[in-house]
Amino acid sequence: MVFKKITLIGSSSESFDDAADDAIDRAEDTLNNVHWVEVEEFSVEIATADDREYQAEVTVAFELEE
Amino acid sequence: MVFKKITLIGSSSESFDDAADDAIDRAEDTLNNVHWVEVEEFSVEIATADDREYQAEVTVAFELEE
Amino acid sequence: MVFKKITLIGSSSESFDDAADDAIDRAEDTLNNVHWVEVEEFSVEIATADDREYQAEVTVAFELEE
Amino acid sequence: MVFKKITLIGSSSESFDDAADDAIDRAEDTLNNVHWVEVEEFSVEIATADDREYQAEVTVAFELEE
Amino acid sequence: MVFKKITLIGSSSESFDDAADDAIDRAEDTLNNVHWVEVEEFSVEIATADDREYQAEVTVAFELEE
Amino acid sequence: MVFKKITLIGSSSESFDDAADDAIDRAEDTLNNVHWVEVEEFSVEIATADDREYQAEVTVAFELEE
Amino acid sequence: MVFKKITLIGSSSESFDDAADDAIDRAEDTLNNVHWVEVEEFSVEIATADDREYQAEVTVAFELEE
Amino acid sequence: MVFKKITLIGSSSESFDDAADDAIDRAEDTLNNVHWVEVEEFSVEIATADDREYQAEVTVAFELEE
Amino acid sequence: MVFKKITLIGSSSESFDDAADDAIDRAEDTLNNVHWVEVEEFSVEIATADDREYQAEVTVAFELEE
Amino acid sequence: MVFKKITLIGSSSESFDDAADDAIDRAEDTLNNVHWVEVEEFSVEIATADDREYQAEVTVAFELEE
Amino acid sequence: MVFKKITLIGSSSESFDDAADDAIDRAEDTLNNVHWVEVEEFSVEIATADDREYQAEVTVAFELEE
Amino acid sequence: MVFKKITLIGSSSESFDDAADDAIDRAEDTLNNVHWVEVEEFSVEIATADDREYQAEVTVAFELEE
Repeated sequence: MVFKKITLIGSSSESFDDAADDAIDRAEDTLNNVHWVEVEEFSVEIATADDREYQAEVTVAFELEE
Repeated sequence: MVFKKITLIGSSSESFDDAADDAIDRAEDTLNNVHWVEVEEFSVEIATADDREYQAEVTVAFELEE
Repeated sequence: MVFKKITLIGSSSESFDDAADDAIDRAEDTLNNVHWVEVEEFSVEIATADDREYQAEVTVAFELEE
Repeated sequence: MVFKKITLIGSSSESFDDAADDAIDRAEDTLNNVHWVEVEEFSVEIATADDREYQAEVTVAFELEE
Repeated sequence: MVFKKITLIGSSSESFDDAADDAIDRAEDTLNNVHWVEVEEFSVEIATADDREYQAEVTVAFELEE
Repeated sequence: MVFKKITLIGSSSESFDDAADDAIDRAEDTLNNVHWVEVEEFSVEIATADDREYQAEVTVAFELEE
Repeated sequence: MVFKKITLIGSSSESFDDAADDAIDRAEDTLNNVHWVEVEEFSVEIATADDREYQAEVTVAFELEE
Repeated sequence: MVFKKITLIGSSSESFDDAADDAIDRAEDTLNNVHWVEVEEFSVEIATADDREYQAEVTVAFELEE
Repeated sequence: MVFKKITLIGSSSESFDDAADDAIDRAEDTLNNVHWVEVEEFSVEIATADDREYQAEVTVAFELEE
Repeated sequence: MVFKKITLIGSSSESFDDAADDAIDRAEDTLNNVHWVEVEEFSVEIATADDREYQAEVTVAFELEE
Repeated sequence: MVFKKITLIGSSSESFDDAADDAIDRAEDTLNNVHWVEVEEFSVEIATADDREYQAEVTVAFELEE
Repeated sequence: MVFKKITLIGSSSESFDDAADDAIDRAEDTLNNVHWVEVEEFSVEIATADDREYQAEVTVAFELEE
């Protein structure tokens, strides 16, 4: 069993939790066997966002198919 | 006044905040004089959870009784 | 265009998100051109708080006026 | 010459060395031009393993084809 | 489900793997529900050892009983 | 909007700046929507290079297509 | 021989050295076989202290009895 | 003699060196007694820049007037 | 209640403790409501000092007035 | 008693343990009073090696003669 | 084959690249078999320099002769 | 002007300051042009010391002769 890790950044105008879920949702759209996720950093984009854009940089670990 | 620090990981199917509270609740069940808590890491357990299990690793600082 | 970074700690009796917003609100009260914010650390103050005081240490980046 | 780095986690019921080799073997199955590997972390999975599952998180650097 | 983490240092005159196992063995002697272990550091004690004493500092995560 | 981050190492016999550009050029050859790049490390390869090979390890952040 | 590490925070109104000694004294009150101590961080508490309370966060390593 | 440190981010369409100088220039416009500067991070802004905007985050240390 | 953090470097020809106090003294000269201080680094300046100049880089946290 | 630390990288076609021993052997060839060794990083050289060259970067601490 | 690593700081009134080369030049003056160099930190000395002195702290890895 | 950095560990039965001075004294015995020293870590050796042996790991920067 070998896992691979990739780094995604999700975003939400609501909260950090939603931003993390946004990234996990996207991972699960294209990857089977997502096993766990580690939060690397939370940030808030302001200048280029309408209001406050909560962002979550996460590392997604998924199992590689044999 | 001497403090001791221990590391706990709480979890919740709802949010990172709840997961941190879960760990603090458990600490306060057994420890008097909890003074403060530092969040070390947030993660999400997926493969072994029904849905998404939000986890918070926290350091709990409490005052040792004389 | 030169940015400056400062470090603020916001707090809330509700959640980490609110604590981060507390710091951003304060920054936007006195600074023009806040561009983005990075979360450095979440913690919970217990001994000196009525209940649990969620705290967010954030770095605020804003554009310096020419 | 441009290199790309990916992160894999290999595992073995024998040893950390074998776990690192497990990840390198998998990388070499699908990638040409693996140049070097850096060990990021060793860990041991116990609860979900039959006995002790030694794991090695490694960064694999390979040369991108022109 | 709440986990607790403790830090142990195992040692062996044979290898780093054995030193890690030494710490895990000791943890499992006294703790139920050890879930996983993270290696923090490997070192070799020479001056105060007969020959070379391989040491492994590990973090042991175990589930706290309800 | 979800971003993905990958790690590339560019090189140049001229300078660190050129090495970083080398990696960005390669990223832009194959990726649409590169948004920003973070420099992780500069190094200089000597033994296996004709003269001095300046290298730049960078993290490239690009927007994933919906 | 297996060592265990715990984290204590000592304090003193005099100096950082005294604060470190305060934590070591407390460890030696309750633990046999303290082998060494590593200083993690020095800080000074001001708002909640009469004057300046020097604090030393230390990791204490002691040998576990067979 | 007490120093203070602030964090600035300079930018340039030419190079990392110029971006660092941009931040130092701005510091010297408003501060007397700049003593030294430490580079924290280099990055390249692409999406919101005409071409490539080289950025240098630096810490500027200057002597506070008595 | 929002805190702000600034970074100062104090110095003393006597000791690290005095160097930290030097920075705290200076902070308290110009700031109300200093709450706590974290030591970031100790160093000793030799070449440009008469003898040995002990330096303490500290982060000072103070409460911003409403 | 004053110790000095140097950094060596040993290698072996067999294992990480052997690579660490390779560096310690070399240190003991030329240095008296090696007291302890800390492992900084494990890596595997592939492109320039016949097969896999396991490497161990270690810090060697030895006592300086009076 | 055993490598040794040493830390040098080069400087230049021109650029960070030149400062790194300054350190590498000096290493190659006295060492055979320099294999690679890692940049640890860039800084700029201002107070004690005529103008701006760009500095590069680098780790130099060279092969020890058998 | 090129600087070299070496790592020494001084010790004292009195205090951390004395331990740092112990290392600096030894450096100045054998090196000309010591420019500055950075403290890396403070620790206390207990098991192998008569009482408490305060230790200071420091990095010493000195100017290499042309």
